[in-house]
Amino acid sequence: MDFEPYIRDIEDFPKHGVVFKDITPLLKDSNALSKACETLCNMVEDHRIDKVVGVDSRGFIFAPLIASKLNAGFVPVRKKGKLPYKTISESYELEYGDDILEIHTDAILKGEKVLVHDDVLATGGTASAVCKLVERLGGEVIQCNFLIHLTFLNGADKLNGYDIKSLLNY
Amino acid sequence: MDFEPYIRDIEDFPKHGVVFKDITPLLKDSNALSKACETLCNMVEDHRIDKVVGVDSRGFIFAPLIASKLNAGFVPVRKKGKLPYKTISESYELEYGDDILEIHTDAILKGEKVLVHDDVLATGGTASAVCKLVERLGGEVIQCNFLIHLTFLNGADKLNGYDIKSLLNY
Repeated sequence: MDFEPYIRDIEDFPKHGVVFKDITPLLKDSNALSKACETLCNMVEDHRIDKVVGVDSRGFIFAPLIASKLNAGFVPVRKKGKLPYKTISESYELEYGDDILEIHTDAILKGEKVLVHDDVLATGGTASAVCKLVERLGGEVIQCNFLIHLTFLNGADKLNGYDIKSLLNY
Repeated sequence: MDFEPYIRDIEDFPKHGVVFKDITPLLKDSNALSKACETLCNMVEDHRIDKVVGVDSRGFIFAPLIASKLNAGFVPVRKKGKLPYKTISESYELEYGDDILEIHTDAILKGEKVLVHDDVLATGGTASAVCKLVERLGGEVIQCNFLIHLTFLNGADKLNGYDIKSLLNY
C-alpha cells in the first residue's frame, strides 16, 4: 500500500519555515490504519519481541497496536513528571535547551527483547534517549521503527548500530 | 478476566491526597492488554462505529486498538495548539481555571457514528467537551467508554444522555 497520499504537509507548523508531516489522514482511514500497523509489524520480521516502547504522545498511537499484534506488552516513555511510579530518566538535546524522558523502573526485565517505536525519526535525540533507558533496565533493543523518517535531519547518525526501519522516508 | 490486579494505586500523585490509578502494569502484560481491548470492544455490542476518538495522551493507547478491531478510523483530540490542521475547540473546566481541547475540522463526517474513549472518567469535563466537538462536526456519539470510572467524582452527571461504559469502577 502507498501511504504517502495519507500524509498531509502543513507549512509553517509548529513554526515558520517548518513543513510538518500530518499523519491524521492516515489515522482516520480504517484501511490505512490497519495496513500501516501490519507493515510496521512485518518490519520486525521473525524477531521475538517482549515489549514495545512508545514515546509520548504520538508514539502511543501505533506502539500498543504493534504490541498487540506481536503478543508483546506496551511500555510508555514520557516527559519528566508524567509517570506515577519509580522512574529512571535520560535528558536529550532539543533545538533550544534540554528535555527529560522517563521510564518506569519495572517496565522492562533484564534480557527482554524490545521494539522502540515513535511516529517520526527527526534528529534522533528522542529515540537515542529511549534506547538508553531500555538498555539501562537490561533490555535489548531489537529495532527502532517509525512511521516517518526525515532522512535530511540525519537522525540515523544518533542511532548508529541499531536496526532502523520506517514506513515512509522523506 | 479480572483486571483489578493490573491497576496499581499510587498515593499522593500527581499531588498530595490523590490516589492515582496507574494502568502501566496492565499495559505491559501482553495478555491483559489484549483482553482489555477485547472487553472494551465488546462493550460497543452490535453498533456500527465509523470513528473512535481518543483523548491526548493516555486515550491514545486504547482508542487506535479499539478502532482497528472495529474497522473504524482513529481521531485524536488534543490540547490547544497541538493539532496542525484547521480545528474547532471547546474549553472545559479544571479544578483551577480552564483548558481547551481541539479536533480537526475534517476528522468526522456528518452522520458518522462515533465512539469516544479515554483511560479514566473522573469529573467528566474532558469527555463532555469531546462529545460537544464530535457533535459540532455532525457526528453521533454512540458510546463513551473508559478503562476506569471513578464513580465517586460523579462524572456521569456531565455525560447525561450518553451511553457510558467502563472496564473498572471505583
